[in-house]
Amino acid sequence: MSNTKAIVFDLYGTLYDVHSVVQQCDAVYPGQGSHISTMWRQKQLEYTWLRSLMGQYVSFEQATRDALVYTCRHLNLKLDQAACARLCDAYLKLTPYPEVPATLQQLNGLGLPLAILSNGSVFSIDSVVKNSGLQKHFAHLISVERVGVFKPDPRVYALASQALGLLPQQILFVSSNAWDASGARHFGFTVCWVNRHNNTFEELGAAPHAIVNGLDGLPELISAAKEGAD
Amino acid sequence: MSNTKAIVFDLYGTLYDVHSVVQQCDAVYPGQGSHISTMWRQKQLEYTWLRSLMGQYVSFEQATRDALVYTCRHLNLKLDQAACARLCDAYLKLTPYPEVPATLQQLNGLGLPLAILSNGSVFSIDSVVKNSGLQKHFAHLISVERVGVFKPDPRVYALASQALGLLPQQILFVSSNAWDASGARHFGFTVCWVNRHNNTFEELGAAPHAIVNGLDGLPELISAAKEGAD
Repeated sequence: MSNTKAIVFDLYGTLYDVHSVVQQCDAVYPGQGSHISTMWRQKQLEYTWLRSLMGQYVSFEQATRDALVYTCRHLNLKLDQAACARLCDAYLKLTPYPEVPATLQQLNGLGLPLAILSNGSVFSIDSVVKNSGLQKHFAHLISVERVGVFKPDPRVYALASQALGLLPQQILFVSSNAWDASGARHFGFTVCWVNRHNNTFEELGAAPHAIVNGLDGLPELISAAKEGAD
Repeated sequence: MSNTKAIVFDLYGTLYDVHSVVQQCDAVYPGQGSHISTMWRQKQLEYTWLRSLMGQYVSFEQATRDALVYTCRHLNLKLDQAACARLCDAYLKLTPYPEVPATLQQLNGLGLPLAILSNGSVFSIDSVVKNSGLQKHFAHLISVERVGVFKPDPRVYALASQALGLLPQQILFVSSNAWDASGARHFGFTVCWVNRHNNTFEELGAAPHAIVNGLDGLPELISAAKEGAD
């Protein structure tokens, strides 16, 4: 970690709370927002993995829409075009976790370039980041769009190395998604898992180098590593 | 379907009931068998997808063991080596669905070669099929082992075409797993989805050519298609 020259963040679930769509789901389907959001997210992830494996890439927006359609069919909920558009639109306006803005500011003070590497399309990433006013913190917003495959395919992680001109081990990759952290570790990144909700790490043959309970644990982690190396 | 020259079956969940391990799970963790089995199976599938995408293939047995370890850690259940071996061993002795033996016999009578194409290793497939005494019905037992990647990667489906010396569309591929049926359809197989439990088909851009509620719906389906073509 003392070797870190840049920090690359996952977006969905790491910087931004995917379950901030619960409120909009609740508005359309009263009392079922939380249940719908959980199933929707799980299916969205499955569709990114399955589409990638099949060689049938579609945009993250499309996978998100497909997952919502599945979820509503599965739960016997009527989904008209207006509700579908409204709920998918909520994914473009996700809320950052509370500690994120101040932590990004602090990390900028350490002089390391920050970037986002996300399954989202260029448009999705741009929308989410701008909507929350956090774009000034990032040197790069990197989408899987260019390689036409989703995480954890190594071609996705390679995009960050290329954009930053750094070796994988010089990049600290930060994700709350244990499967993403595993894929990043297999690729060669230095990896920090953000475990906000006391989750269980995945058994995929790759442990993270560090674990924090929230993004605000990062500045100390990096400072300590730098001091240890001095 | 009138063009069908062979029938290829998925194994886990299609011919054999993955939840026949509930009893063994219940013996080790009383009252929790069904819950454990469901989570274990979901995680097992996720690990096959994620490992494939990461380029980090392990055998199906290993993925199954890893998924069990995750499940027990997640549920705060102690898993000692003996329990782990006992539960993983249950996956080598899965029970065929009740209608399967008689239906395979009937299908043999139609003169079409039958095969299994499975995520399982050669050893796993062999163990499950022999344990149930159904090996005589199959001309080929095909494992993903040779390509070192799991379904729904198209290289897996190609193994069946190669083994049978047939074009994809000449093969009727039968699966209860909607994501597998979707991958097989994208590959080019003629596809029948076995929907035993009134499930929802996946939104992955590929509908099955036919749907049956159990394997015993197949002989009629094939006969009708042949008559329609005469």
